Amino acid sequence: MPAQPAHSLSVPVVIVGGGPAGLLLSHLLASEGVESLVLESRSRARIEATHRAGILEQGSVRLLAETGVSDRVHRDGHEHRGINLRVGGVSHRIDFQRLAGASTWLYPQTEVFVDLADARERDGGEVLFEVTDTEVDGLATPTPRVRFTQGGEAREVTCEVVVGADGSRSMCRDLVPKGERRRFGRTYPFAWFGILAEAPMSSQELIYTHSERGFALISSRTETLQRMYFQCDPNANPDTWADEAIWAELQARVSGHDGLELAEGPIVERSVLPFRSFVQEPMRHGRLVLAGDAAHTVPPTGAKGLNLALRDVEILAQELPRALRQGGAMPALDDYSARALARVWKAQHFSYWMTTMLHRPDGDPEQVDFDVRRSIGEIETLVDSEAGRRYLAEGYTGWPTTP
Amino acid sequence: MPAQPAHSLSVPVVIVGGGPAGLLLSHLLASEGVESLVLESRSRARIEATHRAGILEQGSVRLLAETGVSDRVHRDGHEHRGINLRVGGVSHRIDFQRLAGASTWLYPQTEVFVDLADARERDGGEVLFEVTDTEVDGLATPTPRVRFTQGGEAREVTCEVVVGADGSRSMCRDLVPKGERRRFGRTYPFAWFGILAEAPMSSQELIYTHSERGFALISSRTETLQRMYFQCDPNANPDTWADEAIWAELQARVSGHDGLELAEGPIVERSVLPFRSFVQEPMRHGRLVLAGDAAHTVPPTGAKGLNLALRDVEILAQELPRALRQGGAMPALDDYSARALARVWKAQHFSYWMTTMLHRPDGDPEQVDFDVRRSIGEIETLVDSEAGRRYLAEGYTGWPTTP
Repeated sequence: MPAQPAHSLSVPVVIVGGGPAGLLLSHLLASEGVESLVLESRSRARIEATHRAGILEQGSVRLLAETGVSDRVHRDGHEHRGINLRVGGVSHRIDFQRLAGASTWLYPQTEVFVDLADARERDGGEVLFEVTDTEVDGLATPTPRVRFTQGGEAREVTCEVVVGADGSRSMCRDLVPKGERRRFGRTYPFAWFGILAEAPMSSQELIYTHSERGFALISSRTETLQRMYFQCDPNANPDTWADEAIWAELQARVSGHDGLELAEGPIVERSVLPFRSFVQEPMRHGRLVLAGDAAHTVPPTGAKGLNLALRDVEILAQELPRALRQGGAMPALDDYSARALARVWKAQHFSYWMTTMLHRPDGDPEQVDFDVRRSIGEIETLVDSEAGRRYLAEGYTGWPTTP
Repeated sequence: MPAQPAHSLSVPVVIVGGGPAGLLLSHLLASEGVESLVLESRSRARIEATHRAGILEQGSVRLLAETGVSDRVHRDGHEHRGINLRVGGVSHRIDFQRLAGASTWLYPQTEVFVDLADARERDGGEVLFEVTDTEVDGLATPTPRVRFTQGGEAREVTCEVVVGADGSRSMCRDLVPKGERRRFGRTYPFAWFGILAEAPMSSQELIYTHSERGFALISSRTETLQRMYFQCDPNANPDTWADEAIWAELQARVSGHDGLELAEGPIVERSVLPFRSFVQEPMRHGRLVLAGDAAHTVPPTGAKGLNLALRDVEILAQELPRALRQGGAMPALDDYSARALARVWKAQHFSYWMTTMLHRPDGDPEQVDFDVRRSIGEIETLVDSEAGRRYLAEGYTGWPTTP
């Protein structure tokens, strides 16, 4: 244990960010006997009011259930044993169970958060919400310091390792000096127009739709609340779209020879989701490690964002206790970065692949027309091939974590 | 048989273009009892002096051998039971035989041409070389006319169907009026610098190399003559590159942990090969059909160009005799276009995929860096997956022709 000033607390690990990544890490570390402090800027109520999609890979479900977070995903989640790829108005089912021996679960991210926050509370974990003015220094020393304000009171904590799990607008990733980090990114010329509608389910399983008008995704929240998306201009203003126009666009994109028609109903929420791919390397600097969206963002098409964050944490929960036992140099933190990044780049590619295969690009019209036809050729090659379907199913349900 | 003017010849099918596509079609039609006339602008000697790569799919080899063109490909060609994908200085073998039950054959396009020209000569097929001033009209009538000059003499032939197999600078495809055709295309920000070197083989099987410096392909012509390529600027001037610089670039791209080193030798030929994807739809207009490069061009990375031309011809040799029996409306020619295009778009995607997965893109540096890392993630996902390897092997060795 490093020496600590009389006026400050000390804890082995400070986790900046109390989303699913930060909370799961705190939970897993506790089961290894490692104490941590979680600092979150938002209130618990505000996080619980934020609707986020949630498709959990088999490995993510296992991680939540087997580590004692909650088995609610098994009771309240919906198991998806496949998805549909729709092209030229024909749906092709990708049978995950048969092809990859795996399923995914529809279980919103908000519920994952609730389960984790409840588990931490139950186990007496220290999670502080509505924390402001968080500052970190001393990352190159054996005793980094984290200062923050909570309930009007300025506090300071010393620790051995700081975990930046503070999401896609991460403050922690900027703590890595420019010369010691590389940032990789890609923007996309489109976004998703997402709606929540009070309507019956149109499909038990997700339908990923390629159409000449652009991508659409038919998904579901509950029996009576449906989640649907369609590719739109990133500058689209959702408030200028009439409900009728939204339904007409969705119906046009899925319409086909099989007569598929979406069940309509009142649209109770609407928003435009921007697309971005981002990675910061390495995921370790001195006594700081990054996890989840703080280190990487994926476009939503492959449903990889939350799963990737949970898998970072799974690896980090193995390497961090090793690092603390190592004391000074902590090579285990480099192992964490290397292991996590191998999976991150696979998921980056998978998300990019699903996105570009299914969306209509922009640019030179001759080239756009070529790419639309080529994508149809790709989807047909894929669905005509048992190996192609399996390759997609493996990626969608999640590869095993490299040991 | 349509009425014919006294001064002109008549033949059921005129084939414009005497490359592999045109000659194979003429050969296959003859075996169905359908007479054809082949018109080629170049001399036979000039075509035989043009070196073109040649990787034949299993189906192409079968087509040449089983239809009696030649079994020389089995005697003189090299069977490749796999290829290597190289990334991060490590080679990963894609075992075609185990994964797809198929091989490819290294057998230069020039040899395919020689076999076909010999077969046509042996069987008394009418193939005219050094034909100039070829003109086609009357495509909307039952008796299209083809005029041309050969040996200083102007000639005219009437026919029932004209086949445009006149290559990537096709005159025939321009005969389709603008309002009745669609053209699709894509250019690429790179080209291949190709060399022929008098050197021992560096590898029995092809090595497709991803490197931070860009793509390289290690191939072979014979035991003592090697064919290698590396990605270069499309405006590169091959004559400004010293032999030492070429070898240094190739060695740098393939270098890795396994100590792979290319056997060097005098460079006896060098050229820059441009990249382009192109498709014209439909492949039928009135009594004109297009086949091979006249209708589509692919970048060379997937080795699909020649194979696609031969498969067009395989389908056309089934549909053309049907069309001739149909007489007037010839719906079989539309069936040809639809069947051929289904395969064309698969091959377009495969060629694009192999190209973009293995080459270094250009543009915004942050995005280029992202795509280089992402491609490594893709190749690693692929080689880590039995299904991924099989999916690639199926595409490379050639999908079955849709009946």
